[in-house]
Amino acid sequence: MNAVEGRWSTQQRNRGERLARARSALGAELDGKVVQATHIVELLHAVLEPGDRVCLEGNNQKQADFLGKALTRLDPAQVNNLHMLLSVLSLPEHLDVFEKGIGSRLDFSFSGPQAGRLAKLAQSGKLNIGAIHTYLELFSRYFVDLTPRVALVAAEMADREGNLYTGPNTEDTPAIVEATAFKSGIVIAQVNQIVDKLPRVDIPGGWVEYVVQSPAPYYIEPLFTRDPALISEIQVLMAMMAIKGIYAEYEVERLNHGIGFDTAAIELLLPTYAADLGLKGKIARHWALNPHPALIPAIEAGFVESVHSFGSELGMENYIRARPDVFFVGPDGSMRSNRAFSQAAGHYACDMFIGSTLQIDLQGNSSTATLGRIAGFGGAPNMGADARGRRHPSAAWLKAGRQAREGRNTIPRGQKLVVQMVETFREHMAPAFVEKLDAWQLAEQAGMAIPPVMIYGDDVTHILTEEGIANLLLCRSEEEREQAIRGVAGYTPVGMGRDKRMVENLRDRGVIRRAEDLGIDKRLATRDLLAAKNMKGLVRASGGLYEPPKRFRNW
Amino acid sequence: MNAVEGRWSTQQRNRGERLARARSALGAELDGKVVQATHIVELLHAVLEPGDRVCLEGNNQKQADFLGKALTRLDPAQVNNLHMLLSVLSLPEHLDVFEKGIGSRLDFSFSGPQAGRLAKLAQSGKLNIGAIHTYLELFSRYFVDLTPRVALVAAEMADREGNLYTGPNTEDTPAIVEATAFKSGIVIAQVNQIVDKLPRVDIPGGWVEYVVQSPAPYYIEPLFTRDPALISEIQVLMAMMAIKGIYAEYEVERLNHGIGFDTAAIELLLPTYAADLGLKGKIARHWALNPHPALIPAIEAGFVESVHSFGSELGMENYIRARPDVFFVGPDGSMRSNRAFSQAAGHYACDMFIGSTLQIDLQGNSSTATLGRIAGFGGAPNMGADARGRRHPSAAWLKAGRQAREGRNTIPRGQKLVVQMVETFREHMAPAFVEKLDAWQLAEQAGMAIPPVMIYGDDVTHILTEEGIANLLLCRSEEEREQAIRGVAGYTPVGMGRDKRMVENLRDRGVIRRAEDLGIDKRLATRDLLAAKNMKGLVRASGGLYEPPKRFRNW
Repeated sequence: MNAVEGRWSTQQRNRGERLARARSALGAELDGKVVQATHIVELLHAVLEPGDRVCLEGNNQKQADFLGKALTRLDPAQVNNLHMLLSVLSLPEHLDVFEKGIGSRLDFSFSGPQAGRLAKLAQSGKLNIGAIHTYLELFSRYFVDLTPRVALVAAEMADREGNLYTGPNTEDTPAIVEATAFKSGIVIAQVNQIVDKLPRVDIPGGWVEYVVQSPAPYYIEPLFTRDPALISEIQVLMAMMAIKGIYAEYEVERLNHGIGFDTAAIELLLPTYAADLGLKGKIARHWALNPHPALIPAIEAGFVESVHSFGSELGMENYIRARPDVFFVGPDGSMRSNRAFSQAAGHYACDMFIGSTLQIDLQGNSSTATLGRIAGFGGAPNMGADARGRRHPSAAWLKAGRQAREGRNTIPRGQKLVVQMVETFREHMAPAFVEKLDAWQLAEQAGMAIPPVMIYGDDVTHILTEEGIANLLLCRSEEEREQAIRGVAGYTPVGMGRDKRMVENLRDRGVIRRAEDLGIDKRLATRDLLAAKNMKGLVRASGGLYEPPKRFRNW
Repeated sequence: MNAVEGRWSTQQRNRGERLARARSALGAELDGKVVQATHIVELLHAVLEPGDRVCLEGNNQKQADFLGKALTRLDPAQVNNLHMLLSVLSLPEHLDVFEKGIGSRLDFSFSGPQAGRLAKLAQSGKLNIGAIHTYLELFSRYFVDLTPRVALVAAEMADREGNLYTGPNTEDTPAIVEATAFKSGIVIAQVNQIVDKLPRVDIPGGWVEYVVQSPAPYYIEPLFTRDPALISEIQVLMAMMAIKGIYAEYEVERLNHGIGFDTAAIELLLPTYAADLGLKGKIARHWALNPHPALIPAIEAGFVESVHSFGSELGMENYIRARPDVFFVGPDGSMRSNRAFSQAAGHYACDMFIGSTLQIDLQGNSSTATLGRIAGFGGAPNMGADARGRRHPSAAWLKAGRQAREGRNTIPRGQKLVVQMVETFREHMAPAFVEKLDAWQLAEQAGMAIPPVMIYGDDVTHILTEEGIANLLLCRSEEEREQAIRGVAGYTPVGMGRDKRMVENLRDRGVIRRAEDLGIDKRLATRDLLAAKNMKGLVRASGGLYEPPKRFRNW
């Protein structure tokens, strides 16, 4: 008996059956690996089976939207109960699949814009959520207990052998395709263009079964673009405190920034405020970060030595091509991003993660979950957690580890800096500090085993608000930690509930530091410090290489 | 001015200069990408520059040994002060590079057999150690602050376009090549064979600059093969305790095993002892693991659903090819391993790591560092650490998290099971339990910032010896933890120093469990329980598919 015929080759055999069905369904329409867009529904009907685990590529940037829409056109009598795997559930069709009874189970990482509808579908019973993950965790499970049977991915170009060019937006594709192709699964790629010769090969053709040229290029979202015109002076002040009180204090050389105006302000203050403090070459040298346009002035000023990216950013293509000393680019001049490697880099090779959140409780746990919305986590849990497997030292890591262990009888160990940066009130005067996270109630509603916490208090080292910095590493009891948090929570009820004497005592010990304690003159916290004041300023700083997407062209 | 000529393209320009030097040095000898083995020294002289960061591939399995040896033949007057990056420093030539003054700086993960010589060279000042890492951490730094300028890798075959076939031993190659190729570095691959058509493409040719057919196939070590004949009855007893007291107790479905006879015994007890306990389908279903021969009987018994591997194991090729439902294999029938993805899987998609160590202190910190030897860590820190970014629940993870937090006012969170399994005395009656780790003294000798701890006590959940299991999750004070450790430390001085009353109290509370507490009849702990009793038994269990390397063919 041939190995492939045996009882240990059911997946290979089943794969062969699927391919045979595709051949017989498409007949002469199947040109090697190339399938016409008009036949995509036939192909999926032939290739999919009920209950399949199907990975549909789509992160918060690149989306395999043509294939996602095709899924919604399947006949649920024929293909149903799919177990969908998605990094980001962000397009309406991602949920239509469940509404139409084609899919029934979901494992994912982030659901941003669809979080409300997701919660409703989950409650209606049409969709069973396996779990919410951080990206690298979801990829990891693709190699263990969530290996996709079929993967639907997106690329820029393919050749007729199925080689893929993903170019700057490589993102999640390598991890998804490798897990699927090497476990007898089937990879189908939508591409913007089929060509004779690719600019470079990002995914070998042998890993890909079918390619289809989609009628329109894949959808991509410029998620990391922030218009400097919208940065407030409060944010400038907070950025000054971050730079002087944390970046300089710990000599943070390798880092990741979250998305948002708070961190964009820091990026725009590097060539001005940080340079004036003499910090060039001493902080923020190496980044795991998407190519944020707000980083252009710091790059031009020579602050930034290298940037490895999860994905790219629309409009940054020519700028990146002209700055290969900084970015990871291929011989064709365009970037190679890779979310799996960049997340690993964010976890193990960065000394600091700094980002925003929606709610922080008295233990420092933070969450973006709010009632009626199952939003997920994205990359934050992976980067906003102490990497306990890390062993190489750096000044920042050693200092944070020392502070956490001072006066304790424990073996020395370093620690990652995890900074939560929030204004005490969010939009509509909702306090960022709460006694109890909404996540508790959401967990109950949605039947989750534990509340969906984005970053645990255990892992947070600093909380930065317009009122100051609370250094949780220096807290020596639950009570101190609570008062340190209250002590920067401003006029929120949590802030008003502080024990004033204890907070002053924490301030004397340097656990809490106000702008004035850091020697920062608040009057200097004006928008004049921003290295670019609007989109036009960013374009100018780039020497005209940066080409903002239309919606940001407001001049 | 062309972008490539600008001040932001120094790396690309420098790359071009190196390639031009190679062309002029080799002239007609350079046949496209193919270089003759006899010209390897000329090529390296042309391509390398003093101070380069050079990544030489070699893990504890596959070694780019031909390229490694070629490095030692360079003229140190011409090429010197190389900063060497190595996953595993295991061959003599790895250190010869430093002895000869060609290299001066080293970042690495593991140094097993060369640990003693490494310590001496470091002390002599000929070699400056940057840091010791866990594998995924070292790969991560390749994308941040340790990007290689030149990478020397090993593959099974190449075609004339530079496409590489790494086959079952893909290991570290994808991570190394991607980081180098996309940052204007140069990738040189030694291959066993240059062919017209590869069985499959593992690395696209566009990422590789030169290929050279080495005079002999690359060296590879069967590191994960353990002869069942050498498993003792003490190890059988410990394996029974592990299965009943931990695997069954926590319903551990996804896991990683370290190297060694202790865990080999567990693997061989799955189809016998564990099956008798009715655990088939309930434990040990999904693995991040090299294809251990000792796992064959459990696979044949249907215990194991999937295995994703860091690398392969010599002799397992045909067995793997015939079990594609279990292993990750390509269309050519051979495995695709990938250390980066498998380490990510071990970190984020496994509920348990279980492995051995050399020394454990009273806080549960463990280390393989001993005086005069700088051994490094390998993958253990990454897998033997709580993955704090993990968010998806499982029974095992939730239960461990609950136990750690019982009676504490803290938000619920899961936790990874990290089990250290040791006999109380190692070889030559050296106690495995010590008051103070040798790592402290080594750190002082070698000028390390902190002692080289392999797994921190904070992260260890269970210590298993022939005397019983100490569940550190249930300890509520430093003192309890110390007594729990002493309570399983047998007749070592640390064990003899126990507070007997406290230990009995911990036993009453289930913090310490002896074999009898688990309902294990020690008289049954015989070698009869092993599903295969020797190498021949493994071969038989595989239906003749497993072909042990010569040194293991003892029948």
